[in-house]
Amino acid sequence: MTNVFRSTTQLLNHLTVLQEEMKETIVERKIMWGDLDALGIVFYPRYYEWMDGCGHLFFEAAGLVQGELWKGRNLLFGLVETSCKYFAPGRYHDKIRIITTLDDLEEKTLLLKHEIRASESDALMVRGFEKRICLDVSDPLHFKAVPIPGDILEILKTCV
Amino acid sequence: MTNVFRSTTQLLNHLTVLQEEMKETIVERKIMWGDLDALGIVFYPRYYEWMDGCGHLFFEAAGLVQGELWKGRNLLFGLVETSCKYFAPGRYHDKIRIITTLDDLEEKTLLLKHEIRASESDALMVRGFEKRICLDVSDPLHFKAVPIPGDILEILKTCV
Amino acid sequence: MTNVFRSTTQLLNHLTVLQEEMKETIVERKIMWGDLDALGIVFYPRYYEWMDGCGHLFFEAAGLVQGELWKGRNLLFGLVETSCKYFAPGRYHDKIRIITTLDDLEEKTLLLKHEIRASESDALMVRGFEKRICLDVSDPLHFKAVPIPGDILEILKTCV
Amino acid sequence: MTNVFRSTTQLLNHLTVLQEEMKETIVERKIMWGDLDALGIVFYPRYYEWMDGCGHLFFEAAGLVQGELWKGRNLLFGLVETSCKYFAPGRYHDKIRIITTLDDLEEKTLLLKHEIRASESDALMVRGFEKRICLDVSDPLHFKAVPIPGDILEILKTCV
Repeated sequence: MTNVFRSTTQLLNHLTVLQEEMKETIVERKIMWGDLDALGIVFYPRYYEWMDGCGHLFFEAAGLVQGELWKGRNLLFGLVETSCKYFAPGRYHDKIRIITTLDDLEEKTLLLKHEIRASESDALMVRGFEKRICLDVSDPLHFKAVPIPGDILEILKTCV
Repeated sequence: MTNVFRSTTQLLNHLTVLQEEMKETIVERKIMWGDLDALGIVFYPRYYEWMDGCGHLFFEAAGLVQGELWKGRNLLFGLVETSCKYFAPGRYHDKIRIITTLDDLEEKTLLLKHEIRASESDALMVRGFEKRICLDVSDPLHFKAVPIPGDILEILKTCV
Repeated sequence: MTNVFRSTTQLLNHLTVLQEEMKETIVERKIMWGDLDALGIVFYPRYYEWMDGCGHLFFEAAGLVQGELWKGRNLLFGLVETSCKYFAPGRYHDKIRIITTLDDLEEKTLLLKHEIRASESDALMVRGFEKRICLDVSDPLHFKAVPIPGDILEILKTCV
Repeated sequence: MTNVFRSTTQLLNHLTVLQEEMKETIVERKIMWGDLDALGIVFYPRYYEWMDGCGHLFFEAAGLVQGELWKGRNLLFGLVETSCKYFAPGRYHDKIRIITTLDDLEEKTLLLKHEIRASESDALMVRGFEKRICLDVSDPLHFKAVPIPGDILEILKTCV
């Protein structure tokens, strides 16, 4: 029994950062049953869920845990715009890599780019982005766009 | 008791087409607890789930049920690109309207535009689109882009 | 064109309360593409999402909007236990009804029962429940079970 | 920059099998922003999504990839009943472990048990189960419960 399980270890990795180089995070995920639509391919809003997750992990990799920014400084990076182009569908138990980079950094906004590739062939499946804006969320009913504070901007500059 | 329930009837409508005029479908939804993130606003992939649903309903309103196209003719309109711009966040039990129109129609592709507005104030919350392409899905492992068949194109032309 | 759209109005209703009698709320939903798994049937966690939504609507129908209880009185009905039995699968564009009743009411807890039935045949698809407990959520990191306040209990008693 | 990223490697693991011993699979996941509700705790249908995924991984660890059973033998293990009891809420970026075991094995059905625990404290958060039944899905519109085939039963017996 132990052997049976051991032999499939590689197949069991879901969502793991494989490496974190200078300016990118790479997250691996296996496509699960619950990600699929009736055609047997990934239902596209799932890609946005993963991109959102990988954006949070990118911030965290840079030392900017969004949960702490929120609770400690009333700041969050909200969404201005998101987009995806679809090149090839994902199917059951495909392993994919989500590569996230910071592509643009303005006074109040930043652009996270995400590429989703088949782990084995490296074929491009999805290319997407999230444009996010620094928000003061002290008033839960009226978020306000604010310049990215200097110390956070300094950290983000090292990631571009 | 009956009165208590009756008095809140208006609040209980979730997702309903309010009207279908010439060239648009309008779907109303109440934002539910499960749509929210920790900030108490809609988690953005939910908007794409609703846009996908409203796209299906738009096709259906034109007489093109996607489930029937698939089973009967091996055709589906797959995704080429999706995008959203976010103008104002949705919150618990807000009523929203999703207005869907067909904006562009090419040989193989079409563009569905979706606007999400607060039902009461009519304020714009999200503006998004789905670019879809006609796919022959007879081979489940190799979808093939094909020209939109003539009879379907004729129907779609009346919706632009 | 208007006619085309008008003729499909009935198919466009997603999630609507059809009637609210003495002690139940009935919500109608059309099963959407995004609810399905690769077998073409509803992916079961979706049923729980709908049950959660219908529980909120049941409370609201009784005049107990959970968002207001939370913001105004630091109270929410959290989960103790949930369960579903599955009798027949839901498929693309099936219309279903979710019938929610309050079945048990204790000092701190209550039991919401949900039946999901095919709208046309009335066939039972899913029978589920949510056991919820009254929580004081003033401290966001330490929720505390508390007796259901008297005024709320009085309202709920009329719904059993 | 490399150092910044490297120092947070441990925080970046999402969903990974930590070990696979005799009769269980253990999957680790970090709770993500998109899993949370407005209270900042996991929205409960997410637990069922994870349990479904971990059930698939348990089968796969035993050499029974459900996608292959389906395509190769027209068999799938459908749901009869699911249930969860909730002991402690999950919050942003908590690391959790989902421990899956096979607890009962009958002629046609089996019972998967899932425990979700906080990775650091080992505190129990959720205890759930999925009762699944062997289905012949050759006719996509009429699934039929069938005895678990002998060769599959033999494999599953080694996992109980």
